[in-house]
Formats: sequence, structure tokens, C-alpha cells
Amino acid sequence: MDMLWSGWGDPAKAAPLPDTVIGLLRDLLGVKPRDTAVHALEDIAVPETPLDSAALGALADAVGDAAHVRTDAESRIRHTRGKSTPDLLRIRAGDTEDVPAAVILPATHDEVLAVLRACGQHGLAAVPFGGGTSVVGGLAPEQPERSDGSERSGPRAFVALDLRRMDGLLDVDPVSRTATLQPGLRAPQAEALLAEHGFTLGHFPQSYEWATIGGFAAARSSGQASAGYGRFDEMVLGLTVATPRGTLDIGRAPRSAAGPDLRQLILGSEGAFGVVTAVTVRVRPVPRTRRYEGWRFASFEEGAAALRRLAQDGPLPTVLRLSDETETLIGLAQPDAIGSADAGQSAGCLAIAGYEGTEEETAHRRERAAAVLRSCGGEFLGAEPGERWAHGRYSAPYLRDSLLDAGAFAETLETATFWSRVPALYTAVRGALTETLTAAGTPPLVMCHISHVYENGASLYFTVVSAQGEDPVAHWAPAKHAANEAVLAAGGTISHHHGVGTDHRDWYVREAGPLGIEALQAVKRCLDPAGILNPGILLPTD
Amino acid sequence: MDMLWSGWGDPAKAAPLPDTVIGLLRDLLGVKPRDTAVHALEDIAVPETPLDSAALGALADAVGDAAHVRTDAESRIRHTRGKSTPDLLRIRAGDTEDVPAAVILPATHDEVLAVLRACGQHGLAAVPFGGGTSVVGGLAPEQPERSDGSERSGPRAFVALDLRRMDGLLDVDPVSRTATLQPGLRAPQAEALLAEHGFTLGHFPQSYEWATIGGFAAARSSGQASAGYGRFDEMVLGLTVATPRGTLDIGRAPRSAAGPDLRQLILGSEGAFGVVTAVTVRVRPVPRTRRYEGWRFASFEEGAAALRRLAQDGPLPTVLRLSDETETLIGLAQPDAIGSADAGQSAGCLAIAGYEGTEEETAHRRERAAAVLRSCGGEFLGAEPGERWAHGRYSAPYLRDSLLDAGAFAETLETATFWSRVPALYTAVRGALTETLTAAGTPPLVMCHISHVYENGASLYFTVVSAQGEDPVAHWAPAKHAANEAVLAAGGTISHHHGVGTDHRDWYVREAGPLGIEALQAVKRCLDPAGILNPGILLPTD
Repeated sequence: MDMLWSGWGDPAKAAPLPDTVIGLLRDLLGVKPRDTAVHALEDIAVPETPLDSAALGALADAVGDAAHVRTDAESRIRHTRGKSTPDLLRIRAGDTEDVPAAVILPATHDEVLAVLRACGQHGLAAVPFGGGTSVVGGLAPEQPERSDGSERSGPRAFVALDLRRMDGLLDVDPVSRTATLQPGLRAPQAEALLAEHGFTLGHFPQSYEWATIGGFAAARSSGQASAGYGRFDEMVLGLTVATPRGTLDIGRAPRSAAGPDLRQLILGSEGAFGVVTAVTVRVRPVPRTRRYEGWRFASFEEGAAALRRLAQDGPLPTVLRLSDETETLIGLAQPDAIGSADAGQSAGCLAIAGYEGTEEETAHRRERAAAVLRSCGGEFLGAEPGERWAHGRYSAPYLRDSLLDAGAFAETLETATFWSRVPALYTAVRGALTETLTAAGTPPLVMCHISHVYENGASLYFTVVSAQGEDPVAHWAPAKHAANEAVLAAGGTISHHHGVGTDHRDWYVREAGPLGIEALQAVKRCLDPAGILNPGILLPTD
Repeated sequence: MDMLWSGWGDPAKAAPLPDTVIGLLRDLLGVKPRDTAVHALEDIAVPETPLDSAALGALADAVGDAAHVRTDAESRIRHTRGKSTPDLLRIRAGDTEDVPAAVILPATHDEVLAVLRACGQHGLAAVPFGGGTSVVGGLAPEQPERSDGSERSGPRAFVALDLRRMDGLLDVDPVSRTATLQPGLRAPQAEALLAEHGFTLGHFPQSYEWATIGGFAAARSSGQASAGYGRFDEMVLGLTVATPRGTLDIGRAPRSAAGPDLRQLILGSEGAFGVVTAVTVRVRPVPRTRRYEGWRFASFEEGAAALRRLAQDGPLPTVLRLSDETETLIGLAQPDAIGSADAGQSAGCLAIAGYEGTEEETAHRRERAAAVLRSCGGEFLGAEPGERWAHGRYSAPYLRDSLLDAGAFAETLETATFWSRVPALYTAVRGALTETLTAAGTPPLVMCHISHVYENGASLYFTVVSAQGEDPVAHWAPAKHAANEAVLAAGGTISHHHGVGTDHRDWYVREAGPLGIEALQAVKRCLDPAGILNPGILLPTD
């Protein structure tokens, strides 16, 4: 099934807002109902593909069949940009400026190599496409004007390299507990295939239902159970990568001292260095027990101190998250229940602690973690908030669609830093968002949670809801800009798990420093000398 | 104190071999007592430094004082090569082919930058020098003939960039549990400084007494307590690096999705990309309890299965290692006790499991781990073997000196792979070493242990003892070559924690693949366009 082209996920799972929430939006944020009519897919005007028959023929040869080179309007619209709020607002408004020239569906590593070759020969750029769930502009390459004096003028065309046909489980090694997966596997498909062997990946980001293995690797994804299973980049043991210069095949041991870790050069490269065509990952036995529970803390500070204590001295739950006062009050910690009478946990901050594993191990871990949480001021709320969180864990993006429909604006952004800097980073980003949007006339609701903890620091994930303003994309831009500046100034990283794409690129360049960026551009020139892959995504074009 | 120039460590800690061992060497391996007279330091002929007064003046300017530019014979001999067995044999024989032109001692990051500038201006190469403990030829650069038509012909001279004056603890953040250390700190100095704040790094490789923080970072070191504290590359959160092109300053959060992890591009770069001038590391509270115990398994296979079970299903001891039958029999698992009647644990394989932490936590972990070890066939041997291992944990290199003195040859090599490949890798490397040396006329004793375990695989560490043969360096070369070939053929990595240097470079190039090497060479050219740093170390010169 394809994802809803104009929003998130499965159209059947749309989550209309309760009247109480609509009332709240109106009274609290000044949200005005707007003409919510979204263009129908078939009404969106898509220009003819700029590809000539020679290019189309070469692409068809690369994938063995013209049926795997799609130039119809619907395919191209469905591969236009990603799923950030500005992306949704633009496509709903019929803006097809970033539409790919074609959608190519290779089925093998060699076909990916052949597609890249064809792109090189015909002056095309290529954008790898997994689940299409980027929220940082990772699917809209810059298309610099041609300066090579070739006949066609105007921006260079690009093709979307959709990896959905590469959706196999290539290998399971039960002794080493590893599995080799193809990049186009959506996470639930991968889990189903692994479950046949008794294994799980344990990677459950909010995009779980739609995102793919290749995307997780390319963007350094982090899932909601990262405390227990680690980040995706920590799960990756081996990678096969198709680049315009040929194949990279890396990873002969879990850890090595043989030079810099080349895996970590590909992870986070967001398709700019090559197309990930196989990923060998660590897998674990499917847990026999899953238990999620709620805790209340008097303040975000107190709750954060408790999370830090567990991250530093253990034991770590498998899932560990903490909503700030506003997010708790609004009930966003449990999106399914938002607007219901008991969604907000009254005062304080809601934390969720979840345990997955064997019966005995989780029981013991839970007991010790509970003692720590209690000693840090936590009040045990039982299983209900945990179960509600688990039930609604993938539904926030559906809620966003409904908010957009109702005339509200909703967007998220995230960062991470070391523990000692967390309070200042929280205050700075919250302040920047609030001040910028308030000054623009639509005071926002800014909510935050910690959802990934490490011994030495944590992530902060912000959700902003406000009125849309006249031009919602333009309205949001200064707030996002101010938040990015606040992140850098407070010592945070520009992204903990969403990635860089085009939206964060200018700040990423400052974070990595000029020499760091030059080093990565040197790698880019080595692997992709013609700049075929994702021009302008992650790295500035030279 | 300086390390023994012709061997390992503190001369006062020399470990003479018991007569029983000498007898064993003679009877078992055909070791013949040899003229063990080692050149006296003052008898070694060192050519005059090739540096002219302009170069020496520029280097003195860079470090502020001519006293920090040393050209005396002793300083230069002490910075000639590292501590592999061939390195020791060569320097003992008075071979000064790889002597540096001078030893430079910068005290700050800016002085390092200035030294690199001076090197660039005067056509010199620079080799960063920490503890000087490389066992893979990481301190002997290739010195290609000058091809730039400059007046001086012959190989390019190089300076040793000794970082010992950069030995401070720059910062401790007790909230985040991080510390920033200078690169020239030896591990015991670093531990002492951290202990004043109640913290430990937990990094205890066999080179612990002499190796430095900068070296750990540059070479992806792994310590004997890696099961509990992780590898050094997992401890590093931030790096400051001086390159010929300027400064890299990386690491704003424990984890990030902002591009590839640049830290992991520097870690393992072995000084070829830049000089690490500060390292921010994760620290942990000094453990209140340390407990090491012995276990016996019937076979290496059975013991390895037990280690795998702990690594995959937990709980992991802080130290976990397993000697094969031969290493157990010889008693090398407890080097201090070698040759004593009870050093060998009779039949089977000796495992050591150690626990560090709080009283309560280690007691519980130990109890659960013991149950697992028992269920896997382990026989509990009590604390004595563990304490003996702990007491002798840094003494094997001293033992090597005595073996060399006694006319024996002793060397180590190591690799890692995924669990399912461990048995074949073990057999292949053992076979290659045994066959090659036996064919050369000196049947060796080949011992092995697993000392680093991961969920998905483990390291294998081999110790080889044999007669020296006529020319011990030449005698060893084909065996080492055969072992390297066996490692690659069996799917292992060419090094788990010793690194690449020059000794492993040709195999590393095959492991990383042509495109991987080209990508790293592109980074090298970006950061060090004149090829000043460590020419030929890690990467082939272009």
C-alpha cells in the first residue's frame, strides 16, 4: 500500500480531532477554521517529464523493463519531497516544483549501479527513495542551473530511485545473531521476516509503519526503544553500497581496529555518497514480555534527573521517555487519548518506562528501575499510561494531518546534547520558538520530551502547535530558523535523529566546521565525482 | 620515566624466566641459548640529524624553545619504531634505519599546528608519538625518495612529534560524566587525575602502563575490561585535532544524526589525518568492588559458547576472557605464575570473569553470570586464578623480553569476526602459523585467547613462541604473512585492537577495498595535502 500522498500513512487510520481539541485550538491559539479543501491528486498539474527517449531508454535498460521507469503524474507526485509539515502544506497546495523527472524501481544492487551509470551518462541526478518519510527536506535536491553549455538549459532533472522492489531478507545467522536486509524493506515487513526466525530488530521510530531499512541506515535513525536496543547506527554491522564509482562492501567483524570505521562514514551520509543496497544488522530474540508503565514527576527537571540516574547507573528500561509539563497537560504523550478527560496527567510530567525481554530479566530490571525512579521522586501511575502510550506510539503524524485540516500548524524538531547542557538547551529552543511565533502574531504551544537517553546526554524533541497564519510555510520559517540558531548557540547538535537533508544543512555546516565539511566533500567527490547523488542534500554543492 | 629502549617497560620490572621454562623451551621448541648481549644504548651509531639550521630553527620557533627540539642520539633512538618483536630485535641489533631526524615536544594545540606548518615549509614528515607502544609498525613511516627536484636527495626526513608535555586533565563534567584529556597523558596518569574526581576511564589494555590517551584514540584501542567499559572508540565523545590544514573540533552530543560521525573518521586514523590534541571521554565512578574469578571449560569450543551466551543474553561481566587449551596448559593466562607448578590449570581451558561496580550490583551480576557459566559446563575455580590474572595482567610484554633474551621468539597477533566464523578463523590462523614455522624448521607453540566479546562476535588473540632461527626477523615474516592471509580468507578483520600501521597495511587495503581506501585517501589529501603526517602508515602513499 502507498502512503497518503497529501499527509501521513494509511488514509483509513485518519484521526479526526475531538470538538474539545478544536475548541482548545481556537480559544488558546487563535486557530481559525480554514478552507481545508486539499487538491485532489488528479487535479495537480505535473509538467511533462523532461527526460528524452534516450535517457528513458537507458534507464529502462538499467532496470531491465520500461515498466520500472515511471513517468506518470501520480508516481511522480508520490515521490515529491517528504513528510515535513512544509512538505505537506506545499503538496496540498499543488506545488510540484520539486517533482522528480521519473521514478525508477531497480530490483538488484547491479541494477542500482546501472541506474547510476545511466544518470551519469544523461546528466541526471538521482535521489534514493525508501519510505519517503524524510522530515528535513532529504528528498528535494538542489537543482543547480546547468553550466556545462549543454543544450537543455534550466535546472538539472533528477530521478527518484525507489528501492521498494529490494525488499528481501537475504540472510539470517542465528549463531552470530545477525541478519542481512535489503534497503527497501519497510520496518514492519522486516520485523515479520525476522520473526519467522524468532528475531527482532527492536527499531521502532515514530515512522516505523512506513520507513525503510535503507532510510534508517542513511539517516542514522533512532527508535523509541533505543534505551534497550540502541540506535540504528549501533545495530549496523555491515553495509553494501552502490556508488557511481562502484561498490563498497564493509564490515567483517562487530568491531575492528583496522582504520576508521567506514560503516560510520556511510551511516548518516543520507544518500549523498552512495545507495545502501544491503544492511547487515544485529538482531535479538523476540522478547517474551513487554511491559510499559507510567510515572509522574513534579517537574521536567526532576524527571530528567531520574532519567539521567538510570542512564548513568542503570538499570536502563527498554523504553524511557519524559514529557515536559506542557506536553503532559495537553496529553500528547498519549496521542490516541488527546482531548479525552483523563489524557493530561494533571500536574507534573509524565514519564514512560518500558521493559522488554525474558520474564525473569524484565521483572528484575523493572524492580530495580522502579526503586531508582521512586527514589528520584517519581510517583508510580501503573500500566495504563504506558499501555496508552504504546497503543498510540505511531499516531502523532496522523494527528498532525488533522491539525493541518483544522487550520492549525504543527511541526516537530529535535536535538541532543550532554546532560549538563540539557536545561539551557531546553530553555533556549523553547524560548526561540515561543518568541518568534508570538512576535509573528500566533502564540504557539511548545511541548517537549526526552525520548533518547545516554550515559552522557539526552535528546530533546519539541512539538510546536500554533495558528497557521496567512502563509503557513513562510510563517514557520523564521521560527525554525530561530530554533536552529538556539540549538547551535546552546551547544546542541542540529539533529539527533531526523537528519540534515536540506533544511538543516546550513547549520550542519557550522556544526561540523569548515574542515569537517571539506573532508566529507572530498569523500563525496571520490565516490560521486559527477555529483549525481542527492545534490545539495547533507552537503552544499561545491 | 622513560620506557626501556630495547624492550618493554620499567627495567626494574624485568621478569627473568624460571629454569623450568628455559628447559621447556629447549626440549619442546628447540630454543638454543644465544649470544643475548644487547647493544648498549651508547654504542648504537646514529647518523647526524639531516636537518639544517633553518629547519631546526623553524621547529624551535614552533615550540618556543630549542630545548624542545632534540637531536641527541638517545632521544632519537628512543623514538625509533615501536614495540613489536621485530622492532625490538632490530633496535637490539643496532639497526637505526628508521631513526627520526629530531624529536619535537610541543606543549599546546597551537604549537602542534606550528610544528606541522614548519614541517610543511621544510619538506619534513611528522610522526605523532604517544607512548611509543605500537606493535604494528605505526612509528616507522615510509620515506619515499624526493621527487620534487630539491637539492637534498634520498628519503624525506621525519620528526617524531612527542606529545608527553600535553599531559593535562582539561575539564571534568560530573553531571554529564565526561572528562577532557590531553593526548600525552599515559593511562595511569589519566586514571590518577580522574580518581581525584571519583572517576575512572576503565581502559586497561596490556599496554596500560605506557600507552597514552592520544594513542588509544588514534589506534582504536580496546582494554581488558572492554566487556564492562567498552572499547576506547566507544568512550570518545569529542576530539580536537590539529591537521596541516587547521583544526577539527568535533562532538556536540553523545549521539547525533547530523551527518556521518566525524569522530569515527579520526578514531583509527593512526595519526595520518591529524594529531589528536584533546579527547573528551565518557568516565564512570571508580568501582567500589573488583572481583576476578576463574572458570574451567572442557574445551575452547565449550568455553567460547559460554562467552557467547553471556555476550548475547547477559549479564556481561566487566572482564571476560578464555584461554585455549595450549595457553591454559602453558599458564600464559597468568604470566606472573608461568612455569610454576600450578600455573597450568591442568586440562581444559581457563576463563576469567571479573566484576567491577557497586557491591550490590556486582554481587547480583556475578550470581547470574555464574549460573550461566555453570549451565554452559563451566567449573568454578574460585578467586585465585582471577586474582593471579589481575596481578599479572600487564606483565606479558616483560615476559617477551626474557624470552628474546633466552633465544626464543615470541610475538602476538589478533583479529575478530562474527561468532559463526570464530571456529574457522581460529583453526585457519593457528594452522597457518604452525605450518609456516614448522616448515621453516622451528615448530612453534601457538596459543590463543578470546579477550573481547560482543553480541555478534569476538576477538581472537594469538601468541606464538618458537626458536629464533638464524635471522629471527626474516624467520617470522613468512609466518606473519601466512597468518594475515588466513585472517582475510576466513573473514576476519586484519586487526581487532593493535591497528594497521605499516605491518598490516597491505591486508587492510584488501579488507577496506579499493573504493574504501580511495575515500580515505581523499580525506587524507584534504586534511594533509602535502602528506606530512605518517606517510605510508595506515594508507599507501599515492
